[in-house]
Amino acid sequence: MRMYDIIAKKRDGGELTDEELCFFVNGTVDTSIPDYEISALLMAMFIRGMSERETVTLTNAMAYSGDTVELSRFGKLSVDKHSTGGVGDKTSLIVAPIVAAAGAVVAKMSGRGLGHTGGTVDKLEAIPGYRTSLSTEEFLTQAETCRIAIVGQSGNLTPADKKLYALRDVTATVNSIPLICSSIMSKKIAAGSKNIVLDVKMGSGAFMKTPEDAERLAREMIKIGKGCGRNISALITDMDRPLGNAVGNALEVCEAVSVLRGQTRGELFEICLSLAGEMLSLALEITPEEGRKLAADVVASGAAFEKMKEWVKLQGGDDSCLEDTSKLLTCSVSYEVKSPFEGYITAMDAEGIGIASMLLGAGRKTKEDIIDLGAGIVIGPTVGEYVRSGDVLCTLYASDASLLIPAAEKYLSSLSAGDEKPVKKPLIYRILR
Amino acid sequence: MRMYDIIAKKRDGGELTDEELCFFVNGTVDTSIPDYEISALLMAMFIRGMSERETVTLTNAMAYSGDTVELSRFGKLSVDKHSTGGVGDKTSLIVAPIVAAAGAVVAKMSGRGLGHTGGTVDKLEAIPGYRTSLSTEEFLTQAETCRIAIVGQSGNLTPADKKLYALRDVTATVNSIPLICSSIMSKKIAAGSKNIVLDVKMGSGAFMKTPEDAERLAREMIKIGKGCGRNISALITDMDRPLGNAVGNALEVCEAVSVLRGQTRGELFEICLSLAGEMLSLALEITPEEGRKLAADVVASGAAFEKMKEWVKLQGGDDSCLEDTSKLLTCSVSYEVKSPFEGYITAMDAEGIGIASMLLGAGRKTKEDIIDLGAGIVIGPTVGEYVRSGDVLCTLYASDASLLIPAAEKYLSSLSAGDEKPVKKPLIYRILR
Repeated sequence: MRMYDIIAKKRDGGELTDEELCFFVNGTVDTSIPDYEISALLMAMFIRGMSERETVTLTNAMAYSGDTVELSRFGKLSVDKHSTGGVGDKTSLIVAPIVAAAGAVVAKMSGRGLGHTGGTVDKLEAIPGYRTSLSTEEFLTQAETCRIAIVGQSGNLTPADKKLYALRDVTATVNSIPLICSSIMSKKIAAGSKNIVLDVKMGSGAFMKTPEDAERLAREMIKIGKGCGRNISALITDMDRPLGNAVGNALEVCEAVSVLRGQTRGELFEICLSLAGEMLSLALEITPEEGRKLAADVVASGAAFEKMKEWVKLQGGDDSCLEDTSKLLTCSVSYEVKSPFEGYITAMDAEGIGIASMLLGAGRKTKEDIIDLGAGIVIGPTVGEYVRSGDVLCTLYASDASLLIPAAEKYLSSLSAGDEKPVKKPLIYRILR
Repeated sequence: MRMYDIIAKKRDGGELTDEELCFFVNGTVDTSIPDYEISALLMAMFIRGMSERETVTLTNAMAYSGDTVELSRFGKLSVDKHSTGGVGDKTSLIVAPIVAAAGAVVAKMSGRGLGHTGGTVDKLEAIPGYRTSLSTEEFLTQAETCRIAIVGQSGNLTPADKKLYALRDVTATVNSIPLICSSIMSKKIAAGSKNIVLDVKMGSGAFMKTPEDAERLAREMIKIGKGCGRNISALITDMDRPLGNAVGNALEVCEAVSVLRGQTRGELFEICLSLAGEMLSLALEITPEEGRKLAADVVASGAAFEKMKEWVKLQGGDDSCLEDTSKLLTCSVSYEVKSPFEGYITAMDAEGIGIASMLLGAGRKTKEDIIDLGAGIVIGPTVGEYVRSGDVLCTLYASDASLLIPAAEKYLSSLSAGDEKPVKKPLIYRILR
């Protein structure tokens, strides 16, 4: 088998065999295929597309190209959640304790953020002592003991995807549905959970700008998940505005605690109930409505918040910070951004607010940047609310006062205002199973 | 300007600007653009195609990416000829002296062969003493003195094309009309002649298998040549069978001499008259018919053969070998292949006969192989001729008897025979101007 022939076949719109795709993935990992051949094939795949079978095979081959997590000891109970990424998305911190309190197992690897805001692992590191790196044995023991363990991605998970993604990133071949889906799903398959719930974001702050594109992406990932023997469903949710009112790592932990304690309701709580409901439905083989009810119950009873404390403590974190979240707020400077206008807030550009948060130190511009875990934004009035001149629009947190003004300007430029109250779009656009 | 954006534009079927194409070519030569980005763009160009303007710009950018030959001192008289490659094609050795004898100037760089048979430079090296490498000064002086100088390609001619071709060769992106045409034409433009005649081969022994494909290629190259300010025309000629009866370097020099001395007529002579007629038409601004007549005259008068001797001698070659070509036949072994069949020869696979010649040592399998300049094949009966069992089909020449049998087998398997006399296709399919 020759890479040349594989490239030529896809170049002409042919369908690659399982053997050809595995040859390609193996040759990528063992570096026997040079980068210039890989990127020629990636471009041909981008333009010519891939069949469902090809995408499933590519995903599986990438999933098993390096280490995998073995969660079979948890039977059908293991459940993972993946978000395609958004601003202010702290749902993992909320749904993991909920579903664990309700009986499912969340043994999960999460990413760090690159871009506007931190990832789940960055957020957890805002809790003093929390260990985001555990040995396999520690990880599994922790999951057995308290039904939650959340760590950073292990070094050798899906090396084929790492390599291919790095090349796609520099050869304009990222934005391909089959390549995006196989990349995401290979990591989820390698991470071992039997059940997977996807939160596919759409809108200005998301990768997929339209509901149609988000739905295509979701349907493709569901096919792949099923093709790889997993139970899977997907929520398509709005990311035209940030999720919840906190953007920034420690601030998002505070908001998550507040939701789990029943102190914060609203859209964030709603989306968490829907996600947890889906996760419990798959893991416990109940209906999504039963799952949602169960999720609401464990929050109301306090079991979910107790589970969060148990988990954080077992994983080395200072659980007293969860009882008193003011301990997490380490920033020396804060600043209230006042409104220069009067009127309804008609839109909030999630991406712009994410950038404002990054300007405060809450995100990374490059992989090497160190995040200021305390920095970020607490959003005040949101889309649909009426604002008077001089009202507080948001509070910025930073460790250096010089960062405040550029972030405030970015925040203001991310808002749109008008005289008419806008029609608020529903947060959950669709649930696909 | 970023290579990433250029790739993305072509990926989506966009038309690249002149600036973008020059950025790409310059970055290829100065190695600031990595191979994996180049090959991604090449694949996008292959699949999405290129406009005429893009192809002209790419050609020009590649032509001026390294050294160029400055032939303006010859005014409109300089004329080049390019063949897309065939088996037994020694037309350059014949038309160069013809057009020089008739008043045009052939100051030409020729390639070495890679594949079945040698290139023009390999063939000239079969003449003892012939110098295929001259300084620029020597080259131009020689061209001024006798109106012919033919040398090998200088080291730094079209480095962009060299680099791109090497990548296309390993990424399945060779067979693209705009990329083929810009590659060929960039070398012709860099080589400096004001007038260019192309011999585009079609058929089993050629790159283009059908007349339609050959014509598309020719039309595209004509457009590029005109776009780059050159006078240009193209012959589309048949390469279903080898050209002439000699295949192999020294053997082809012998056949060329024989044509120039008026001793060999037939198809090879015909195609040379047509090529020379086109070349003279462009260089001397006469009609192609007048050019063809002039070409026939200088052969008949002996002026063309005298010009060949003058040229070879000036360039260091032993011109006595041209008077007595038996001196060129250095092989110790020869072998007559007898016919195992009776009937008409209905077809001769040019590529197969080229391979037979390579098996005798007349061509290179890899760039590093050393050619046996004396080796090759003299073809006997050709397509349309009736053969009896035991008749001599061809004579093989080699330096090692062990090479004869595999070559003989290859030769025989390249012939088709039948009871009915085949209709012979015309050698010159079309002339495009």
